[in-house]
Amino acid sequence: MRLERRLEFPDYDALRDFLEQVVDLSEETGIYPNQSFGRTYVNLTLFADDDSGEISAAAEAFAERVDGFAKG
Amino acid sequence: MRLERRLEFPDYDALRDFLEQVVDLSEETGIYPNQSFGRTYVNLTLFADDDSGEISAAAEAFAERVDGFAKG
Repeated sequence: MRLERRLEFPDYDALRDFLEQVVDLSEETGIYPNQSFGRTYVNLTLFADDDSGEISAAAEAFAERVDGFAKG
Repeated sequence: MRLERRLEFPDYDALRDFLEQVVDLSEETGIYPNQSFGRTYVNLTLFADDDSGEISAAAEAFAERVDGFAKG
């Protein structure tokens, strides 16, 4: 199981600001999604825990904060 | 055709420094590779030009500068 989200941005500056917020959040929480980005899109993937096979509460909280960044 | 490169980093700080250099280079050159990263790896993909189907000289020069960043 995984949480996936694709986000589009009007320009590279907006994308860069978003990425920096997510990277800061990763350093703060120790949760490291895969982020795949080009010029105006980011695909974010949060993976389930290896042992439980479930998305952790911490990962869900992380995703909610990322949603907040995306709303700008 | 595409140019692909996978790079590993000792920690997230090193990965973050690398990403910032590549993003700066994208803003400088207008060349935007896909970058897919997690905690200690980055997969970079530079795509061929749509019309020529070839990797442009500018993209090759970009890849060389990225190699330089990776060597730190």
